[in-house]
Amino acid sequence: MDAIDALMTTRAIRRFTDRPVSDDDLQTCLRAAQQAPSGGNVQPQQYVVVTDPEVRAAVGALYQQAYHRYEKALPEATFDDDEKAVAWRRTRDASRHLADHLGEVPALVLFLQPIVPWGAADEQGHMDIGRLDASVYPAVQNFCVAARALGLGTALTTVIRIHSAEVLELLGVPSRPDGLPRFEIAALVPVGYPKGNFGVAPRKPVAAVTHWDRWGSKRA
Amino acid sequence: MDAIDALMTTRAIRRFTDRPVSDDDLQTCLRAAQQAPSGGNVQPQQYVVVTDPEVRAAVGALYQQAYHRYEKALPEATFDDDEKAVAWRRTRDASRHLADHLGEVPALVLFLQPIVPWGAADEQGHMDIGRLDASVYPAVQNFCVAARALGLGTALTTVIRIHSAEVLELLGVPSRPDGLPRFEIAALVPVGYPKGNFGVAPRKPVAAVTHWDRWGSKRA
Repeated sequence: MDAIDALMTTRAIRRFTDRPVSDDDLQTCLRAAQQAPSGGNVQPQQYVVVTDPEVRAAVGALYQQAYHRYEKALPEATFDDDEKAVAWRRTRDASRHLADHLGEVPALVLFLQPIVPWGAADEQGHMDIGRLDASVYPAVQNFCVAARALGLGTALTTVIRIHSAEVLELLGVPSRPDGLPRFEIAALVPVGYPKGNFGVAPRKPVAAVTHWDRWGSKRA
Repeated sequence: MDAIDALMTTRAIRRFTDRPVSDDDLQTCLRAAQQAPSGGNVQPQQYVVVTDPEVRAAVGALYQQAYHRYEKALPEATFDDDEKAVAWRRTRDASRHLADHLGEVPALVLFLQPIVPWGAADEQGHMDIGRLDASVYPAVQNFCVAARALGLGTALTTVIRIHSAEVLELLGVPSRPDGLPRFEIAALVPVGYPKGNFGVAPRKPVAAVTHWDRWGSKRA
């Protein structure tokens, strides 16, 4: 698949068919993730790939709790027009559907990153300047674009972080000797064949948020 | 270009030719960036594209200061073997070269994100759960992969953050009414045609950092 087409049509997929995802395809996506850049090339991330139905169901139950707690905490949405309100409700319904069925999605990929105190050097002697996240989300995005190129749907989700401790324990992720967590969950990405089609997701026109040489300066 | 090939061969490019980069190509990369996911689809990022030679030189001077301050703060590196030491020095020399010539790179793209107090809702009513970064680095990565597909080299850099205030003022980026900054710089991406070739960057074998269903469980 063409690279630009893959980038343009990688969008959140929240409804999946039952068709299993092959290990080979997951490996291809992980290799693409691994090629993403990281500060000082430390490659801090670890991947936990969950395909076992029981483990998926257990992660799914925690995700469902986390999502509904998150949704309740959202401020009430207001809209300029009906079209926006309809689009918002469609996305909310899809997000709810994903939350209520996450455990049935063929594969769940968790992206873990080590917890490094702000300003401290990690094990590889890498000094973070407050941006270890810059070293994991490019990997998540590479994973999702590679999946798209293979016909697989994904969504970058972070709400599971509400129940990080429970998920890390469930998956047997080790803690530090002092009992504090060694890793945090940067993202949980469900992977499967989409119900429905890929397409270009609605976004602001790029010209509206692009400035040339100086803030506010536009180019035709 | 094939999507998987583009993902696998997008690597940091730190030496560029003088060949200019077309506005059309920059726009294609920005459109790809804009399609990246963001929490609640709020698309928080703004782009400042610097191609004017004088503005590039001014940003380059600040980048050079920031980089050399950063390099001095790095802990002394130690290595298991000579091969790793040689690779480390090669990357450091390339990073120094970029720092000393950033102002000459044909285009500099700054990715800005709004500063949202932790746990607060932003203007669109989006509640961040400590991960607004999850909404900007996927866009940076999409930009870099699209550039690769067009034959353009990039590098995801964050050291300019040391001189954020000066850069934001230089570019005329507005502050809040109370004088506090409204935006921070998530990344600065230099863009140009590479001296030398693209290729698959050295990374840990993905199997070493992948766990199946449970931490430590490997698959053949």
